[in-house]
Order: sequence, then C-alpha cells, then structure tokens
Amino acid sequence: MSKYWSPFVKNLEPYVPGEQPKVANLTKLNTNENPFGPSPKVLDAIRRASDDALRLYPDPNSDALKSAIAAYHEVEPEQVFVGNGSDEVLAHIFHALFGHDHPLLFPDITYSFYPVYCGLYGIPYETIPLDDEFRIQVADYKGINGGIIFPNPNAPTGRFLALDEIERLLSVNNETVVVIDEAYVDFGGESAIALVNRYPNLLVTQTLSKSRSLAGLRVGFAVGHSDLIEALERVKNSFNSYPLDRLAQAGAVAAFADDRYFQDCCAAVVAERERLRRALSELGFETLPSAANFLFTCHQTRLASELAAALRERGIIVRHFNKPRIDNYLRITVGLKEQNDVLLNALGELV
Amino acid sequence: MSKYWSPFVKNLEPYVPGEQPKVANLTKLNTNENPFGPSPKVLDAIRRASDDALRLYPDPNSDALKSAIAAYHEVEPEQVFVGNGSDEVLAHIFHALFGHDHPLLFPDITYSFYPVYCGLYGIPYETIPLDDEFRIQVADYKGINGGIIFPNPNAPTGRFLALDEIERLLSVNNETVVVIDEAYVDFGGESAIALVNRYPNLLVTQTLSKSRSLAGLRVGFAVGHSDLIEALERVKNSFNSYPLDRLAQAGAVAAFADDRYFQDCCAAVVAERERLRRALSELGFETLPSAANFLFTCHQTRLASELAAALRERGIIVRHFNKPRIDNYLRITVGLKEQNDVLLNALGELV
Repeated sequence: MSKYWSPFVKNLEPYVPGEQPKVANLTKLNTNENPFGPSPKVLDAIRRASDDALRLYPDPNSDALKSAIAAYHEVEPEQVFVGNGSDEVLAHIFHALFGHDHPLLFPDITYSFYPVYCGLYGIPYETIPLDDEFRIQVADYKGINGGIIFPNPNAPTGRFLALDEIERLLSVNNETVVVIDEAYVDFGGESAIALVNRYPNLLVTQTLSKSRSLAGLRVGFAVGHSDLIEALERVKNSFNSYPLDRLAQAGAVAAFADDRYFQDCCAAVVAERERLRRALSELGFETLPSAANFLFTCHQTRLASELAAALRERGIIVRHFNKPRIDNYLRITVGLKEQNDVLLNALGELV
Repeated sequence: MSKYWSPFVKNLEPYVPGEQPKVANLTKLNTNENPFGPSPKVLDAIRRASDDALRLYPDPNSDALKSAIAAYHEVEPEQVFVGNGSDEVLAHIFHALFGHDHPLLFPDITYSFYPVYCGLYGIPYETIPLDDEFRIQVADYKGINGGIIFPNPNAPTGRFLALDEIERLLSVNNETVVVIDEAYVDFGGESAIALVNRYPNLLVTQTLSKSRSLAGLRVGFAVGHSDLIEALERVKNSFNSYPLDRLAQAGAVAAFADDRYFQDCCAAVVAERERLRRALSELGFETLPSAANFLFTCHQTRLASELAAALRERGIIVRHFNKPRIDNYLRITVGLKEQNDVLLNALGELV
C-alpha cells in the first residue's frame, strides 16, 4: 500500500485468470479455449487489415461490427454494445447498471469475476446458493435487489437454465436489470437474446472467445434494449474513445460472416464433449450435465486436488477451484480428440 | 435517463473524439494521426501472429511487451504498465491514483478527456489557467491537491515544458502523484521517463498511436515507480483479465524493435511541421511553437470557425474547439507534404 493510491485500491482483490503457462507441449485444458483455430476467413480478414491504415484510429463506434452482430441476432444495431472481450463489457455493465444501493444478486458458485467487479465499483452484493444439484433456482432470486446476473450455461458447472425459467424470473423482476452472461451458450444452450425485445431490463452478453475461437482477439458484446445500451455507451465513451482496434473489428466481422465454420466447429466440440463424458463415467467420474465446452466432474473416490496435481506432473493442466462446495470437482475444457485421449489415459493410470 | 441506470450515468458527459468520417478522399488533418504507415516489420509481425494461436487467450500481463518497453526506456519491467491505448491507461490512472478528497489539478486548456475521467470516477478537480502565451507555469500548481496531470507537449497547444520545470514541480509536490502525458513527446520533446527513478510519485504515459503510427492498434503505456504500477495492475486486473490482444502485443513489440524506421518517421514529420509553420506564417497565421505533430494556429484577420467550415467544404478537415480562449485557433495535424500543400493552397485562396 502506497500513500499515492486511491484508498479503495488497498482492498481490491483482483481476479486471477486461469494460468497461461509459457511452456510448450502442455495439454492445456484449463481455460476453456476452443480446441479449433478461428475460421481461415477470419485470419485472412485480419491479414488484409494489417496495412498502412493502422496509422489511423479505428471506428470508435464499431458500426460495421454492430451491424454484423445485429443482423446475425435479428436485432437493431442500437441494441448492440461491443467491447474488448466480454470481461470489459461486463465491467461497464457493473459500473453503468448495477451501481445501486440494494445488493446485486448472483449465484454462490459462478464466474468469480463478479465479486471482483463489485469491489472495483463499490457495489453491494449477495450470493444465492445453487441447489444441491448445482442448479440455479430462479425462485430464490426474489425481493428488492440492485440487479441480477448469472452465466447461462453457468460456470464452472456448465449447467444450462431453460429460457422459460429465465422468463419466469423476468416476469417478477422488472425493476432492475437482469444480465444473462452467455459466454458458453453456443455449445448447447439457447440464447436469451430471443427475449430482449419483450423485456426492457434484460441484457445478454456473449463473447467471440469461446465458440468463435478468438480468445486472442478480445471481442465481446451485449444485446438488449437501446436504453441499456445507451448507459453502456456513456460509460465506455468516458473510459476509452476507441476500445476495439482495427484488427479486432475486421476479424470479428469476418467471424459472423462464416456461419458454416462456426456451426461445424461447435458441433465437433459438442460431440467430443459427450465422448469425454462417457469415458470419464467409465473411470468412475460423476459429471454434471454440460451445455458448455467444458465438463465439471468429481471422482467417486479420488480427491480432485490430488488428481489435478498428478495431472500437472504429467503436463496436463485442468482447473481446480479450492472453494467451498466445489473443491472436489475438476473443470476440464473439451480439447481435441488427441488431447482428451492424453487426459483419459493419464486418468486411467491415476484412478 | 432510464430507471435501470446507475445514478451517476445520468450526468456523464462523454468525451467526443475527433471525427472519423467514413468518406474517402478527404484531407484528414483533425486527429493527429501519423501521415506515415507503421513499420513494415510491424505489419509482418501482425500477419505472422494471425494464426491458429488466436484461439488462445493472450498473455494477460503482456510480459514480452513490458520487457521491450523497459529495455527501450532503460527501466525495469515492473515499472511498466500497458493498456489498450493511452486512454485506457489514463482511465486506470485516474481511478487508481487520483481518487482522493482534494482536487486534481490540470490546465484550463488541455486534453479534454481529463474532466470526463473525473466525471466517470467522481474525482474533484480544479483547472489552472495557462499563461497568456499558453504556457504551463509550474509555480501555479501549488497547495494541497489530489494529484496533478498535464500533457507534455500540451494538447492542443503543442507547447513543450522543459524537464527542469517538471523537476521543479516534483521538488515541491511529493505528497501526490504527478502524471506527465507524453502522447506527442517523440516529435521534439524530451521524456520525463528520465526522472522516474528519482521521483516515486512521477508517472509518465506514452502511446504508440502517434509517433509509431499505430492508432488503429490501441497500445499505450505508463512508466513509473513499481508501487504506482502495482495500483494500476490491481485496477486493471479487476476490470479486464486480458486487455491487450495477441496482435496488439505482437505488433507493439515489433515497433520497439525497429528504431530506425521510428526515428526516420519522426524526423520527417518534424521537418514537414516546420515547413508548414513557415508557409502558414506567410499566409498571415500566428502559430505557437510546437513539439508535437500538429500546429495550433490563429489567423490575424480571419475567424477560425469560418476557416474550419470553409476548409471542410473543400474536403479538408482540421480541428476547431469552440471553447473559451482558444475559439480562434485551429489545430492542424501535420500531414504528408501533398496533404499539407492541399491545405496551404486552400488557405491561400481563403485568407
């Protein structure tokens, strides 16, 4: 702590992202990246944009990208906000829409960045326990609040909440904003974007990092009523005039143009996920249903912490959260078939 | 205003960046971009980084880039913070280091984003008038404050404050952070980075947008004592886990590696700036001394607002600020020789 710091910085506990080791030849199944590379058309678009025009500022409003997203999701461009990864979009959402006196509500087991944003912006919050099967029960999100947020599918559980449940929540909670964080929705969920035109307090976030294989490019977005988008634009335009660089805008536009690649890629991940689930079951793992590109799994007899450590010694990294309720689970990203086989072979020797 | 907004959003007045028109064939001298493209080695590095690895998250700490900047400026990597353009770096600085009870001090005529950041983070501020020749007088920055910030060279004046003056300020102001925003320093200034190891409250920001021709890539950085950098890292890591994408990191590292291109480019801009100044003088303009890649100039008889409008009709865009003290000045970015000639020919007909 330095006397020069703004006082709140002292108590900030930053988010710790999944490890990005710089060692080669690891089987890296810890940060839910897509095992397949981006569409070749995306790479071409980026290479084409890598020219003298980089001396010029990007379009500060990312109009072409907003139009591409709007067309893809059948909304108006004014209903779309884009940012430098969905983490940045979420940060602006917390600041612009959750800065109220009453507590923000989110699950006890969820994306661990949410309490961090609350710390950054001084937002009170209350966590609502998942049920015994790690499901969100919307009936538990009741009473006066400053907003509600959860991922769907939830992370790190992978469980998906059906849209009619989300609609049930929206029908009783219309005084504050409900944010559905759909980072993983393309791997088997159904997007709540279908509901935004009926609920002016519903905001849905998505990212190009997972299903579109562009974690390295940093593009995320939110879709909702234009009044909600306006609040985000005001905060964004007070923070950084030009958040999305030219290459990110060019690559992201191209990603929405190549739907075939996207669909094939998601289908391949889903097929491999289900193969991995069955194989884990044969090894004595109990795995939650997943609509994401990862599995949340617990062995009948072996401790998760020990398995994670033993895998690491063999160059295989999975995610283990040393937290109440989930400390005996491993979150395993679905990799390529060969990577998953490396994992399964190692687990076969360990369990 | 929507009931869903966080209350502070209502009164936010976002920064309005210089226009980025989407019409071709304009002579665009309004946003201080470099007239030369980036180093070919930068473009090559970006094209090489546009591959399957984009499916993976970037290095969250931008270690390679921090090392490149540290080596270039002869400091330690722990003294370097990087962000998505210097606007993002500045936003984190305001939040992390200027959130105090006493007012932040900055010039009355300066980068107009500063009061916007204050609005975003609820920071009190006080503006200190430039002297009659638009110079910063460091003796005016006295008394209890929550911090001090100004650009050097200042914008939109282009005037440079010598390092011994900055040192004079630091010698009397050691209780709060002093930030020198050096977006334009490479066009004739001298960097205060030379002072950071002697003053633990000095933080210097720079950008790759101007002198390194990479406005489209969004990379900025700050250099200072590691305690100040730690505050920025805490805020950054509570905001966005992976702010700089893979392509920005790759391109920025390559930019620092090609010093010859950078030096030649800056020298060419400076030579052209001085030619433009002399030619403007012959047309009856009075121009402030500039250590930047723009000129701040006032005609002896013609109104700046009228000249800006008349130039615009001819497809030439310069910046005019309709603000007290400077409403009779034009800020003209130094373009290529051909662009500057287009401007001079038009002005020759107008004045």
